[in-house]
Formats: sequence, structure tokens, C-alpha cells
Amino acid sequence: MAGVCTRVTRNLNMEKLRNGYLFPEIAMRELEHMKKYPTAKVISLGIGDTTEPIPDVVTSSMANHARRLSTVEGYRGYGAEQGNKALRKAIAETLYGDLPIKDTEIFVSDGSQCDISRLQLLLGSNVTIAVQDPTFPAYIDSSVIIGQTGDFQDETGKYQNIEYMPCRPQNNFFPDLTTTATTDVIFICSPNNPTGHAASRKQLEQLVEFARANGSIIIFDSAYAAYVTDDSPRSIFEIPGAREVAIEISSFSKFAGFTGVRLGWTVVPDELLFSNGFPVIKDFNRIVCTCFNGASSVAQAGGLACLSSDGLMAVQSVVDYYKENAKILGDTFTSLGLDVYGGINAPYAWVHFPGMKSWDVFTELLEKTHIITVPGCGFGPGGEEHIRVSAFGHRECILEASRRLKSLLS
Amino acid sequence: MAGVCTRVTRNLNMEKLRNGYLFPEIAMRELEHMKKYPTAKVISLGIGDTTEPIPDVVTSSMANHARRLSTVEGYRGYGAEQGNKALRKAIAETLYGDLPIKDTEIFVSDGSQCDISRLQLLLGSNVTIAVQDPTFPAYIDSSVIIGQTGDFQDETGKYQNIEYMPCRPQNNFFPDLTTTATTDVIFICSPNNPTGHAASRKQLEQLVEFARANGSIIIFDSAYAAYVTDDSPRSIFEIPGAREVAIEISSFSKFAGFTGVRLGWTVVPDELLFSNGFPVIKDFNRIVCTCFNGASSVAQAGGLACLSSDGLMAVQSVVDYYKENAKILGDTFTSLGLDVYGGINAPYAWVHFPGMKSWDVFTELLEKTHIITVPGCGFGPGGEEHIRVSAFGHRECILEASRRLKSLLS
Repeated sequence: MAGVCTRVTRNLNMEKLRNGYLFPEIAMRELEHMKKYPTAKVISLGIGDTTEPIPDVVTSSMANHARRLSTVEGYRGYGAEQGNKALRKAIAETLYGDLPIKDTEIFVSDGSQCDISRLQLLLGSNVTIAVQDPTFPAYIDSSVIIGQTGDFQDETGKYQNIEYMPCRPQNNFFPDLTTTATTDVIFICSPNNPTGHAASRKQLEQLVEFARANGSIIIFDSAYAAYVTDDSPRSIFEIPGAREVAIEISSFSKFAGFTGVRLGWTVVPDELLFSNGFPVIKDFNRIVCTCFNGASSVAQAGGLACLSSDGLMAVQSVVDYYKENAKILGDTFTSLGLDVYGGINAPYAWVHFPGMKSWDVFTELLEKTHIITVPGCGFGPGGEEHIRVSAFGHRECILEASRRLKSLLS
Repeated sequence: MAGVCTRVTRNLNMEKLRNGYLFPEIAMRELEHMKKYPTAKVISLGIGDTTEPIPDVVTSSMANHARRLSTVEGYRGYGAEQGNKALRKAIAETLYGDLPIKDTEIFVSDGSQCDISRLQLLLGSNVTIAVQDPTFPAYIDSSVIIGQTGDFQDETGKYQNIEYMPCRPQNNFFPDLTTTATTDVIFICSPNNPTGHAASRKQLEQLVEFARANGSIIIFDSAYAAYVTDDSPRSIFEIPGAREVAIEISSFSKFAGFTGVRLGWTVVPDELLFSNGFPVIKDFNRIVCTCFNGASSVAQAGGLACLSSDGLMAVQSVVDYYKENAKILGDTFTSLGLDVYGGINAPYAWVHFPGMKSWDVFTELLEKTHIITVPGCGFGPGGEEHIRVSAFGHRECILEASRRLKSLLS
């Protein structure tokens, strides 16, 4: 019976998506490399995946929660779709401190990537979006899937009907808002993936002012907030006036090594209103109740433990470990005479290879040092000439990578 | 700064959704009842939420997995978006046995309700759907959100552009396919929520034949398959020819008490093709990679333990406990002279009150016995005159409910 087609038309939005997706392509190239050099010890500074154990205080809490599910007193079925009250409260109080974020404005999720798509469901196909260029690919891909865009243009490397906001060294990695077209939604990631740049308070004040003037909604991705070292804002809600124009998505993934455990959250302030005055939070709540059913209760128990005073200290020490890695890598590339960005407020360094194609840099580094990086063009045309270097890794691998790079390029 | 609206238009699809959602409405009425009768011991046979502890063999496995995340050897970051290979293999081999389901056709999820929305993202706004009436609300609500429907009609209790397939006692709770309009997608839930009816092999053979003749895709929800007692199929893939026309969604929620742990799966066969020959599995894989990031690794460890031989026996004994509850409740209503459906192959009994409004039945039962049920009309206009009674509960509550019902109505 092979080859019988249904009469259901393939979704045109899915057809618009480019076939290749960055990380599978990198994985394929890594595989080919390992076939070619079967004895080489490949070091991955590629995909931003945490490598260090989760502190005991957090995993014990998950283990205890799991075991309690075998007891009559401890068993719980469905939790609230929006997350457990205690966790919502702890996020509001611990991570937002003096900011007026209410626990009811916090929606616990299974990670910010999932919430990006749920926000797109909420917004629908008739809104326009702006993204930083380079950018984390999920904002664009989810926009294509929900039907907000036109076709992909091979000549430009861009989808039609998306406003790409260049973020390059020459504009301090922040959009030039005087030349940015007005859109309904503006995605901003800070500290940024891939450039590692944390937007300054002044940059974010300008952004909020821009959104307020144009009636736009900012979707602010603060997944790397725990890596901020200087006084850059960790939340868009540190900026006065943001509550009427911003949503914040965030995650325990890079904050607490929860990439596999899956936990995140989204903040939707009560004051954020559609043009007809309807509160965005009400529609997001409906989306969460209909299209999601709450994060795993075990993951939530772990999240709560992260926010205890012991937990916070323990997870911060892992973050500091990765930040030291980032410094080692940044210093390495700097010592080779290259311009390096990021790495201070983020676990990513963004290295400039003037005049070179980023896939060529990727290939050359892999060939000569057996190190995997990410070609900047994978994050959009604005990423050309750069590679992203991830600081997630065991210290000995980072040091070995540093040695190989120095011996090769110096 | 209150009252400042953005200029972003509210998504028209979200506006189409009816405000009230069944279970919040029931929760509100329960609250009002408890204010009126503060000393009454309310028994809930309402929302279908598991109540019994998860077997030790399963929670130990989750606890061990969590603890291993604190070790250098045991730590894992991102897993495969599609789920861990071992779990996909175990689902294929243990739950599908001799059926030719490959592990690569199984996508592990955080629950079938979430996968319903991901399937709607995959399908897009240009497909038409058919649902059973009465039906689990998520199929319809997700269809409205993605934009497949017209407006809700108060006169009929239906959305425009959805085919409602009546499932009543007189048609043995299965759609009359001779009078069913052709649609792109047909949602079928068996064993059914809310009617408790498990479709027979013959009924499903007719359904597959109907889908093949019309080129439709069946989305088969088998979340209650573990409750099948007789020889009704537990999977649509037991029916020859289903691989070219069906997707199956399923869940550990009611099978293993994972309502709060969150774990499910979806089967997309390689042979299922869009009208242009493009494999549906490729687009679903893309959706899973872009809009989801895999189920919690802790939940997946628990799922794997459920499928060991000890695990299977242990979780089946909990299912049997709920089935005994269902029998007690079914017998109770039968002894009162009412027609009772379901309860044999499902944890729900569907009780007929001829000529009565289901909200009136709900109210009268609550007022006179302090028992919460679900009014059938909450599942669509085809649910009128019925209430759904959930068999999830501690035995002593079920027995007490039985006593109250018998003393009142007999």
C-alpha cells in the first residue's frame, strides 16, 4: 500500500521553512569529520549545551519529590497549568526582587523555546515581527510556522515580511532604532545569543521608548540573565514603562543546568494590552491552559530548590565556572589578534574573522584543530564573518581547546 | 501609566474562543457550594485526575535519574527532541508489540494535550476537521486557535466549519460515516472521553476505509488504551491500512498516574503522506525540533521504568483499581434505573438522564449529594442529557459516593 497519498495539502508555512537547520547540519559535518579522522579527539564549542552536574541541593529535591509520588500523602495529579504557586512566588520574589512582578504574572513553562511558539500561537498570523540579526533561530522559525512571513529569499538570506535589525560591532550589537521599521512585535535577546552582548540600560530605555511610541510589544528573552557580570539589566522590567509594552521569557536551562530537565517561565504583566484594551495575559493564560498542561512537577520541585538560598549559591557557582571558561576562550582568541565580543555577560564569545565566510572559518578550525564552533551565518546574514564559541564544557576541554587554537593560529 | 494600549491587534482566533471553559466553571460552582455548605464533605467525580500513588519501581527510577544528574558521569544536557532512544524503543516494542511501529516513528512528548496543539501547528489554518460530539474540548479549542474554524454559534452550540459527528446511544457512540461530511482531519478518541465507549474493531475498520476513500488523516487519541478490557483495539494501527491515514497520540497520564509528571507520545507512520507526497513525519519532526525541546529527562526515566516487566504489572494494578471504581459507580447508577454507558473500557461512566439539561443534573446532584460530576453539554451539544462520572478516586470516596447516590435516588 506504499505511495498512497492523502488529500490533505501540506501546510504552506511548513513549506516555506528552509530545509537545513543549523545544528543538525553541524552534527552531520562533525560525523563526517570523525569518519575522516577516527582517532581525533573532537572538542565541541558548538551547541550551547550545559555540561556540569546540577548541585545536590537541587537534584535531592527532585528525587524527594519523585519518591513522594509513591505515597498516599505525597501523590499529586494535575498541577496548575500556570505552575505551582510556590514556584511562581519564588521566581517573582527571588529573581525579580524589588520589581513589581506578581506571582500571577509568572507562567512556569517547560522552557523558553516552547514558550516562543506558544506566544506565536497567541499572536497569530497577522502580526509583523522584528528580530536582531544575527539571532537565535527559533523566533524566525516559529514566525514562519505560524504564517507571519513571506518566502525565504536566497539572495538576501532573509524571509520577506520580517524586519531584520542588524547588530554588528559598529552599532554596539544593538539595533539602530532610528532606521528600524515599525512592527507589532520586537524580539530582543539579552544577554544575546549568539553575540554574547548584554544590552545596556540606556539601550533598553531607548527600546522601551521606541515600543511605547509605536505601540509595539517587546518579547524579551533573558535566558542568559544569570551570566550578567556588569550592571546591564537582567530583566526588561528594570526599565520604567516596560510593563505596558513587554513580555519576558526566561529559563532554568543555562541558569541551573536544566537543559534536559526542562523548566522555564514567561512574565506577562497585567498592564500589557492589545489595541482594543484586552489584556494580553488573559489570552496567554488561555493558551497555556489549552495548549500546555504545566511543566513536570518533578522539574518544578527542582526549580524551587534552585531559588532557595543554598540553591542560588550552588547554581551561581556553576554559572561562574562557565564564565571563567568564557574568559579563557575570549582571552585565547584575543591573544591571536582577533576581535572578540561577548563572553563577559554571556557564555558565548563572538569572534570576528574579517572578510571570511563563517562556514569557511568553521571548516578550517575543525580541520586543523578538531574543534566544533558555530558559523555565524547560521544565525542570519548579519552573522557572517563571525563564529560563535560556546563556553559550556569541562575545564580541561576548554584549556585543551585554548592550547590547540594558540598553537595553530599564532 | 495604566490604560496605555499597544497598537497590536488581538488575534481574531483568540476572540472566537468561548470565554467559559468547562473545568474552571465547575471549580467555581464547587467553591460556591462549599461556601453554602461549609461542613459538607464534597466528593469529586469531576475532572479526570488520577489519585493513587505511582508504583515505587517507577518513582525510584525517576529519583535515581535525578540524583545521577549531580554526578559527572550521570549528567546529561539536552536530550533528543524526539525523546530518548531507549524510551522510544520500549514504547514501540512493549506497547505496540507485533505491530510494525518503528522507534523512529514515535515522538515522546510532555502529554497528548500538548501534542494536539503541535499537530494543529503542523496542519495549519487551511484544513478542515471533524470531531465526535460529545468530545474532549482540546481538539476544537486548538482548531479555533490555529484558525481553522468560523465563529461560535450560540443557537447550535457549535463552531462554524467544524464537522460535528454525533455519538449517541442510538448509534453506539460511533459516527455514522454515511452522513459524515468529508474533512481533511478526523479526530477520534477511543476509549472515548467522555462517553467511555471503546470503538470496536469493525467500527475502526469502517473509519480507516472512510479515511482512505476520502484521503483524510485520522488523529487517533488512545490516552485511555490501558483501560480496554474486551477485545476492542488499543491502537488504530491494529487496523490494516491505518499506516497511510493515521496519527496516534497517547499518554502516560492515565496509564501510569503521570498527570503531574507529564509524559506522552505521538506515532507518525512513515507512510503517511500529504497530497503532494511529502511525508507528514518530516514536518512533525520539524515542529518538534522548533516548538518543543523534548520531555523532561526525569519523566522519561519514569516512563522507561513503567515499561519494564515489573513496571507494567505495577501500573496495570493501579489501572485495575480505577476500573473497579468504574464498575462500582456504573452499577450504582444502573441500580437506580438509569442507562449507563462506558466504565468497562474506560475510567469514565456516561449516565443518561432523558429529557434533562445536564447542568441541571449536575446542580441537583451537587445540591443533594455533595458530589461533583461533569455536565455532558460541556463536551458539546451532543453531550446534553448526560453527565460524565470519573472513576479516579480513593476507593472509600467512591463507595461513599455510591452510598449517597443510592440513598438519594432510590
